[in-house]
Amino acid sequence: MSPMATAEARGPRPRPRDLDSGTCSIARTAALVGEPWTLLELRDLFNGVSRFDELASHLGIARNVLTRRLATLLDAGLVERVGYREPGQRGRHEYRLTAAGRDLRPVLLALMGYGDAHLSGAEGPPVIVEHAGCGGTVHVRLECGHGHRLGPDDRVRALPGPGARPRA
Amino acid sequence: MSPMATAEARGPRPRPRDLDSGTCSIARTAALVGEPWTLLELRDLFNGVSRFDELASHLGIARNVLTRRLATLLDAGLVERVGYREPGQRGRHEYRLTAAGRDLRPVLLALMGYGDAHLSGAEGPPVIVEHAGCGGTVHVRLECGHGHRLGPDDRVRALPGPGARPRA
Repeated sequence: MSPMATAEARGPRPRPRDLDSGTCSIARTAALVGEPWTLLELRDLFNGVSRFDELASHLGIARNVLTRRLATLLDAGLVERVGYREPGQRGRHEYRLTAAGRDLRPVLLALMGYGDAHLSGAEGPPVIVEHAGCGGTVHVRLECGHGHRLGPDDRVRALPGPGARPRA
Repeated sequence: MSPMATAEARGPRPRPRDLDSGTCSIARTAALVGEPWTLLELRDLFNGVSRFDELASHLGIARNVLTRRLATLLDAGLVERVGYREPGQRGRHEYRLTAAGRDLRPVLLALMGYGDAHLSGAEGPPVIVEHAGCGGTVHVRLECGHGHRLGPDDRVRALPGPGARPRA
């Protein structure tokens, strides 16, 4: 059966509203990182703030709160704990993003791009992110599989993928 | 004074941990949209689900909760309310993204890309987003100002921008 025939056999394409709201990559990622505190902790970890005391101090949160939050990120596999010991001190841990955690970089940079454009006011962006290799400023772009760069006015269509589930 | 001299006059570049945690485009955008429910409402609005009843039904939330949430999005200028009337019915409102709301598309697509890659399991992505102009699948890319595409292993540097504030 050709792909065309398959498509016809399925009947009209379901609209997004006909699909289960929770079976959605945005819903799943939002459940994982869609709280403001998670995003700020991940930001600090991306920026190399890795020690418990530094994180607590920079984020301005109590130690017991940070302990709970880091446990959530550890359980989710976004962060790992690595031992270190400074001369004459007891062993401590620092926290590092796992490969899965580092894959959230586009999410953080997309949030940053929006804030730079809409929420920075006259002062301008608080932070510039540079490509370490060349010093060029890093931006998030939307691009399609045929190499077109998409701007805000380019229309897109959301279609059911292989993991779609109809609404109950 | 040359830019070099200016940089030297400023002394060593502050590290991100030396900057105020709240003066940050990620923190500002997270405060605006960094709750799972906000992201799902924006997703549905992007997908053309615009009427109150449809939103309540698809998101599976109570009408009074949806009313409060939409008021938050209206106040933030991400959403606008537009009247419509069907024949023989009373006037109703539908909700549409403003231009500022539509600029969140890269944020939602970055969340989706992460979920597709890490949280979809064997079933694969629930949704495919196509460029309406050509049918190519849309992805989020990181690119620097010198035209380099950045992969997960390319290093970046966060530097203070014009709107940076040192920590208190």
